[in-house]
Amino acid sequence: MRVVFSHANFFFMRIFLSLLFGLHICLISAQSDEAVLQSFYTTALEKQQSYKWLGELCAIGGRLAGSENAAEAVKWGYETMKEMGFDTVYLQETEVPHWVRGVEYAHWNNLPLAVTSLGGSVSTPQGGMLAEVVEVADFDELDSLGKIGQIEGKIVFYNYPMKQHYIKTFHAYGDAVKYRWRGAQMASEYGAIASLVRSLTNRLDDFPHTGSMSYQDAEIKIPSGAISTIGAERLSEYLKINPRGKLFLQLESKHHGRVVSHNVIAEKYGARYPEKIMVLGGHLDSWDLADGAHDDGAGCVHAMGAAKLLLDREEPLKRTLRVVLFMNEEFGLDGAKTYADFSEDEMHVLAIESDAGGYIPRGFSFDTDAETLEKIRTFQPLFLPYGLFEFTNQGSGADVGQIRGKNIVLGGLRPESQRYFDVHHAATDVYGAVNARELEMGTASLAAIVFLLDTHDVIR
Amino acid sequence: MRVVFSHANFFFMRIFLSLLFGLHICLISAQSDEAVLQSFYTTALEKQQSYKWLGELCAIGGRLAGSENAAEAVKWGYETMKEMGFDTVYLQETEVPHWVRGVEYAHWNNLPLAVTSLGGSVSTPQGGMLAEVVEVADFDELDSLGKIGQIEGKIVFYNYPMKQHYIKTFHAYGDAVKYRWRGAQMASEYGAIASLVRSLTNRLDDFPHTGSMSYQDAEIKIPSGAISTIGAERLSEYLKINPRGKLFLQLESKHHGRVVSHNVIAEKYGARYPEKIMVLGGHLDSWDLADGAHDDGAGCVHAMGAAKLLLDREEPLKRTLRVVLFMNEEFGLDGAKTYADFSEDEMHVLAIESDAGGYIPRGFSFDTDAETLEKIRTFQPLFLPYGLFEFTNQGSGADVGQIRGKNIVLGGLRPESQRYFDVHHAATDVYGAVNARELEMGTASLAAIVFLLDTHDVIR
Repeated sequence: MRVVFSHANFFFMRIFLSLLFGLHICLISAQSDEAVLQSFYTTALEKQQSYKWLGELCAIGGRLAGSENAAEAVKWGYETMKEMGFDTVYLQETEVPHWVRGVEYAHWNNLPLAVTSLGGSVSTPQGGMLAEVVEVADFDELDSLGKIGQIEGKIVFYNYPMKQHYIKTFHAYGDAVKYRWRGAQMASEYGAIASLVRSLTNRLDDFPHTGSMSYQDAEIKIPSGAISTIGAERLSEYLKINPRGKLFLQLESKHHGRVVSHNVIAEKYGARYPEKIMVLGGHLDSWDLADGAHDDGAGCVHAMGAAKLLLDREEPLKRTLRVVLFMNEEFGLDGAKTYADFSEDEMHVLAIESDAGGYIPRGFSFDTDAETLEKIRTFQPLFLPYGLFEFTNQGSGADVGQIRGKNIVLGGLRPESQRYFDVHHAATDVYGAVNARELEMGTASLAAIVFLLDTHDVIR
Repeated sequence: MRVVFSHANFFFMRIFLSLLFGLHICLISAQSDEAVLQSFYTTALEKQQSYKWLGELCAIGGRLAGSENAAEAVKWGYETMKEMGFDTVYLQETEVPHWVRGVEYAHWNNLPLAVTSLGGSVSTPQGGMLAEVVEVADFDELDSLGKIGQIEGKIVFYNYPMKQHYIKTFHAYGDAVKYRWRGAQMASEYGAIASLVRSLTNRLDDFPHTGSMSYQDAEIKIPSGAISTIGAERLSEYLKINPRGKLFLQLESKHHGRVVSHNVIAEKYGARYPEKIMVLGGHLDSWDLADGAHDDGAGCVHAMGAAKLLLDREEPLKRTLRVVLFMNEEFGLDGAKTYADFSEDEMHVLAIESDAGGYIPRGFSFDTDAETLEKIRTFQPLFLPYGLFEFTNQGSGADVGQIRGKNIVLGGLRPESQRYFDVHHAATDVYGAVNARELEMGTASLAAIVFLLDTHDVIR
């Protein structure tokens, strides 16, 4: 039989092929996706709404959980989101610790060293302490010296630098942060009376970087601080000249128990699946040494800015979009835990946070199954014109990581990390350290990924 | 016949398959490439040699071609490269213009506006000028107003902003730079007595940005300057309030004819093809308003640092490596033209420059044939761990673009562009605006691409 390809044949064959490969649908949909993404990036870069909001938030100052500034930031978040077109905006109570830094000072024979308390440290005796210092390179050296009685009655100084060879600075941070987190506990086991860490930054400068620490089950809690990297180099030199010299250390602070604070939550109900919830989050609290512009003011205005881009579209999202400005990521994850507890019976399908700074975005990291990640990766070509190329399965973030759900996809924005620890938890984390365009590219990227995951039903 | 796959069969089959697909070779070679690249990035990030050199170069100050500082930079480049292990280091004479900026001042009824002369502008009359200003959005509006006699005797103010929606800021620059380049010439045709452009930057701040301009064949040369973006916004407001108000403009400068300067050249002869030359370049001159840290101190120390990484390997390069620190890219490309003329009979196979800042690298752009680009793109997976993913055929750079050669591959490093125009040609282009790690990632990337192109004979 001779097969004649008539026009009718072609017509039906095209329909058949279209159905078979979904080509038509894909082509139309891809075009439309491109246009939507372009509109997000154009609007974000032209209007710079996130950047403007960040200016307002940073003007409040440092927002350590439990502080008046943190309460003011809650009010700001609530009032700002009230104007954005959400269906509802509300506060969610959460208890947080209230710890207040006091006088901080250190010197070696009157040569001052830039120092700051780690968050939650107990205070030195009022008026400070004067003691010999023992420098250790790492925990191994602490153990060696501790076993021969060389730690007792002294201040332990962990001079462990962030390693420069890691390409992603978060890996260097992960490698070094243990000395900040449990240095005091380890040193106290050998009878140390205080501990100091070299600040966690890639720069050599004179700003000390604070951050959380834990006494875990230590019997005796000793004061613990961080000195600047320049201070660490100097102290190490002083110790070479005179190993028996004494350091004056004053790290005053006070615990004021627990107080009530709030997560700020805003919702736009989904048009098709209102019961399915997509969380976009950042944390509203910051450390107290600066304005928390990158950590995590950027994350808050990323989430808010992305929501605004999504809400301003004519086409509504299928699922409910919920922006959560979490309280107290830095000092115990209280807000995230409260949120997770309260929302346990809800159906979360997606939770993405931005908590790695307002730098130029390079992609996203997820916490999901391999099959879903493969689906997400099909969106990569849409992001390449905007410079995002990383779509990995390497975790999400501390706040959204608390949220439980059967089919939930967790995610985190992944900005360029080279400069993050230059300012992280230090006096340098101010509005002027954030570039408007880099910040806005993050905002648009978050809107884009939520749009794509919702529109193409990659999330359940 | 029953085929039995004995061990011997398997052995020969493996050899056969290996030869057929070159699998063994590929695997060994890929491993080795990976190790070499890792050593480049590790060394660059740990030693920060480029960053240290940049500190020395920036300490000289602005290096406008023809200036004493430029001569000092030549000396610095020569003496520094003398210590690096090259086979030869020498200076190449080139003539450059010598133009010197004088008093610069503008005010509107005593309200000051931050202003600077464009490079090569003629001077206003001594003591300045006072004249009405006519603001135009673009050349079309200039034409419309010019045709009805509204330009004559006035100062033309081009208030054309860099468009924020371009993802790569170089595209926004390319779109807007025509007002700086030929604004004066166009305005003078309608009888304007001076011209001002809104500074070419993505930021709203109070720093004017200079840059080259051309009178082309204009009969009358009028003084031309740039005002800060904040100044542009203000002036536009003032003009709305009082369109007939007058601007005082003083832009003094002087042409001192042409003087002798130098390219700085260093060579390491190739072990196998010494006659084949690979150029690594940056330009030593800068504008005079700051230290030229990003433009193009970064490019110079990129080229030098990459050369050091390559020279410090035990395995020599096959081809000759030539570092060229070009003189006067900014103000006429004299050094590049001289270099191209003098080296016309040499066999250039590669010329890569870095002249887009010391920001985190995102890839390379080439000027080559499609087949060679495809070969280069096979290296992309080696660069992905370091965040470089762009390998395009979209041009190289102004200096290396002058070099001619039958089979030459031209290339340029492509760093992230978001912040480049924040500092470009302005008082903000200082050492402190460069991040050590971002800079060093560029150095390692340049070493890596030269190593790969030479080792795998992608260049002829």
